Amino acid sequence: MNIERKHLDKGYIQIYTGNGKGKTTAAIGQAIRAAGAGYRSLIIQFMKEYPYSELNALEYFKEFISIEQYCGDEFVYKKELPSDEEKNKAISALQKVKDEFAKSNFDIIILDEVLVSIYFRLIELQDVIDTVKSKPSNKELILTGRYCPQELIDLADLVTEMKEVKHYYQKGVTSRKGFES
Amino acid sequence: MNIERKHLDKGYIQIYTGNGKGKTTAAIGQAIRAAGAGYRSLIIQFMKEYPYSELNALEYFKEFISIEQYCGDEFVYKKELPSDEEKNKAISALQKVKDEFAKSNFDIIILDEVLVSIYFRLIELQDVIDTVKSKPSNKELILTGRYCPQELIDLADLVTEMKEVKHYYQKGVTSRKGFES
Repeated sequence: MNIERKHLDKGYIQIYTGNGKGKTTAAIGQAIRAAGAGYRSLIIQFMKEYPYSELNALEYFKEFISIEQYCGDEFVYKKELPSDEEKNKAISALQKVKDEFAKSNFDIIILDEVLVSIYFRLIELQDVIDTVKSKPSNKELILTGRYCPQELIDLADLVTEMKEVKHYYQKGVTSRKGFES
Repeated sequence: MNIERKHLDKGYIQIYTGNGKGKTTAAIGQAIRAAGAGYRSLIIQFMKEYPYSELNALEYFKEFISIEQYCGDEFVYKKELPSDEEKNKAISALQKVKDEFAKSNFDIIILDEVLVSIYFRLIELQDVIDTVKSKPSNKELILTGRYCPQELIDLADLVTEMKEVKHYYQKGVTSRKGFES
């Protein structure tokens, strides 16, 4: 890409939560907007399945945006608690974040669906709090997902709730490729 | 891009409104996700100023995403009503949408900030309603902006309110390049 690489001076903590559409899309859109300004982003996705149309599109930004996926969401559909194996993957994802906080590879780290992962007990709230508190001042950290605990809202600089006012699922439309998936 | 061009079978009407962050970013992110699935988007921006980091990044998607900007927002800062010249630009933007509805260039049309443009009297609500009602069934139409009138919510299939829960502007942070602009 013909965009000059820059480094962030001061970063904040952003949260996108709520039951509405657009949380992940806003976070990934933020990574793309930041790429246009020369900043590099790491997106860590929890509880997501391949393939996403976004992954396809983001191939074109691979110099500026990296995506890693940790933990599936099968256990939710099976109505089970997450296995220790899945929980360990989640812990390693947070360790990866702390490692990257100490490096200069990325300016923005996005923990996509981390909040709902706390709700489903894939990840401990306290471990996320510890990770958030370890953020250095020159990194931006973005958390997304439903059911954001108040403790994380208290730590954040910017919190947006995506609220569903009306949804076409009510009309029987299911997830559409290129839209919801 | 190495993505196969597809055409949408059935499109819906989406609205992103509310006073929170992420409305435009979610809409543009939607265009990028759709590009990954082979759909082409036209983004028409009202009341926006150049340059946006997004425009920079979206250069890489120019085969799938086109952006056109209509009308500035200077009149708001001058505390004036929009001039007839600006209003005529807004009318021509809606005409452009109707023209594209009849063509197969684009599957998704995004009217970014059109809702706040109604609020600021740049554009008439009835003209937007007429445009929305002229949408053919194989096009997706996405409207963004604060202050969505109830008449448009009634017409939409999917409405998400981005609600500001906490904002760092309260801490004195102003718009940041690569984040809000």
